[in-house]
Amino acid sequence: MSFVPADPAFVERTRASFARQGIMALIGATLERVEPGVVEIALPFKPELSQQHGFFHAGVLATIADSAAGYAAFTLFPADAAVLTVEYKINLMAAADGDKLTAVGKVIRTGRTLTVCQFDVHVEKQARATHCATGVETLIALVGRSGVRG
Amino acid sequence: MSFVPADPAFVERTRASFARQGIMALIGATLERVEPGVVEIALPFKPELSQQHGFFHAGVLATIADSAAGYAAFTLFPADAAVLTVEYKINLMAAADGDKLTAVGKVIRTGRTLTVCQFDVHVEKQARATHCATGVETLIALVGRSGVRG
Amino acid sequence: MSFVPADPAFVERTRASFARQGIMALIGATLERVEPGVVEIALPFKPELSQQHGFFHAGVLATIADSAAGYAAFTLFPADAAVLTVEYKINLMAAADGDKLTAVGKVIRTGRTLTVCQFDVHVEKQARATHCATGVETLIALVGRSGVRG
Amino acid sequence: MSFVPADPAFVERTRASFARQGIMALIGATLERVEPGVVEIALPFKPELSQQHGFFHAGVLATIADSAAGYAAFTLFPADAAVLTVEYKINLMAAADGDKLTAVGKVIRTGRTLTVCQFDVHVEKQARATHCATGVETLIALVGRSGVRG
Repeated sequence: MSFVPADPAFVERTRASFARQGIMALIGATLERVEPGVVEIALPFKPELSQQHGFFHAGVLATIADSAAGYAAFTLFPADAAVLTVEYKINLMAAADGDKLTAVGKVIRTGRTLTVCQFDVHVEKQARATHCATGVETLIALVGRSGVRG
Repeated sequence: MSFVPADPAFVERTRASFARQGIMALIGATLERVEPGVVEIALPFKPELSQQHGFFHAGVLATIADSAAGYAAFTLFPADAAVLTVEYKINLMAAADGDKLTAVGKVIRTGRTLTVCQFDVHVEKQARATHCATGVETLIALVGRSGVRG
Repeated sequence: MSFVPADPAFVERTRASFARQGIMALIGATLERVEPGVVEIALPFKPELSQQHGFFHAGVLATIADSAAGYAAFTLFPADAAVLTVEYKINLMAAADGDKLTAVGKVIRTGRTLTVCQFDVHVEKQARATHCATGVETLIALVGRSGVRG
Repeated sequence: MSFVPADPAFVERTRASFARQGIMALIGATLERVEPGVVEIALPFKPELSQQHGFFHAGVLATIADSAAGYAAFTLFPADAAVLTVEYKINLMAAADGDKLTAVGKVIRTGRTLTVCQFDVHVEKQARATHCATGVETLIALVGRSGVRG
């Protein structure tokens, strides 16, 4: 599907918002791709991101998947709208055992208030990628709420 | 509902597994309660855990919710079984704007292979708690997989 | 949690809306309970409701669970608002093998636009009830959309 | 993705199982496509399938979506395995206002025990199709359970 962003400065606006997410710096995630309705986030492994078996923790994986989906929606929002996650569902299909995660969020439906996105996460191990998670997420556009920007 | 753990040493086993989750140390989460089928995790706020509006990031919240549900299931597993998250769904019902998160996971159904848990997350701000997230999670018990323990 | 309905005539309004759902008559479902934020629907078994093993089909079960949650939200809406399901997630925890299903929907959070409900479904077989499904559902209140009432 | 069915007679086995689902005959759903890992089900509108606004009820839509996903998984199972839905999540992205629904289920990951599928539902009105629902579903393969076949 092809989308036309309401705000021509959507790339800068998305990058600026991402830069304000303290958690992305803490875990070491980077914004790899910002297109209309599509956002990709990458995250290299470090032991601090592990669950008890030494793989990426599902919550870390979900953190970048949620941000990828949220920013995919955000690319299509007007300049004065903020994005909040309403809900998501994630299936962890394979152990996130590897050196790097890549999460891609894609808008599949935009509405007056709500946007629906899909996300997919792959884990790379020695240059082989495994599709380790998929999900669906609902986002809401908020306009004019004090204290909530971008 | 009341459950009888298969392993009398379930508290120690759960605490030991939690201690191996690198991500819990990184974000500063602590294991507050371990009972048969019920686990509670707490997490004080710090700016590194924020999303772009300065609240707890949904992914951080989901990280402790997922672990609370996973360990709730784990308390009922036999000593040689590991736990993996199959999938979960989370609704973010209010902004996680506050000083501390508390996530409680509870087993609602155990089966031969799969366990279903509910989780609820509250955020505290100046001693007032808000129910900010709820969800349902499916866990699988793995026995005898090399490289995967507790 | 206790809720105060915006419309004092919420019981009649809910019953009238339920009566317009053709599918409820087709499958034979009945509205058993309408309270502020809580709705219960019952459904006796008949072979036309089965999946391939002769149990209630998951979709039939989900149909009454979705309506129970939707009408639970609807009880709290103003008189001129319609309800639509945004999304739901359901876990089928035991085979729906029995004579009768009972679905209870409960509001757990109301907001300006969105309402979050939980639902639980029990199946009765020879007077023994089994908790066979649980889920979380998001509803939206629509006001002033032509062609969409109650 | 391309899959090789374990049972060469997967088409006949899937059609035979579908024919045993009483609910499909009751609502008037038909099996349109059975390929390795992909199943499509169609359903013409009739007033008995409606919710209160005269559109297809979300539960009816979910019923065929769930069966499409379940049978998509089933096409890849060995001849002696039955399929049960573990859970699913569905987003209703547009009112199911039209003459006919088409649900397509696709396998995205197979495992030893669990299979993950996606499903998408379109509604047709005067030859124009709208993508009205999407979701993710987890299925389990059961082997050797008495009373549960195909």
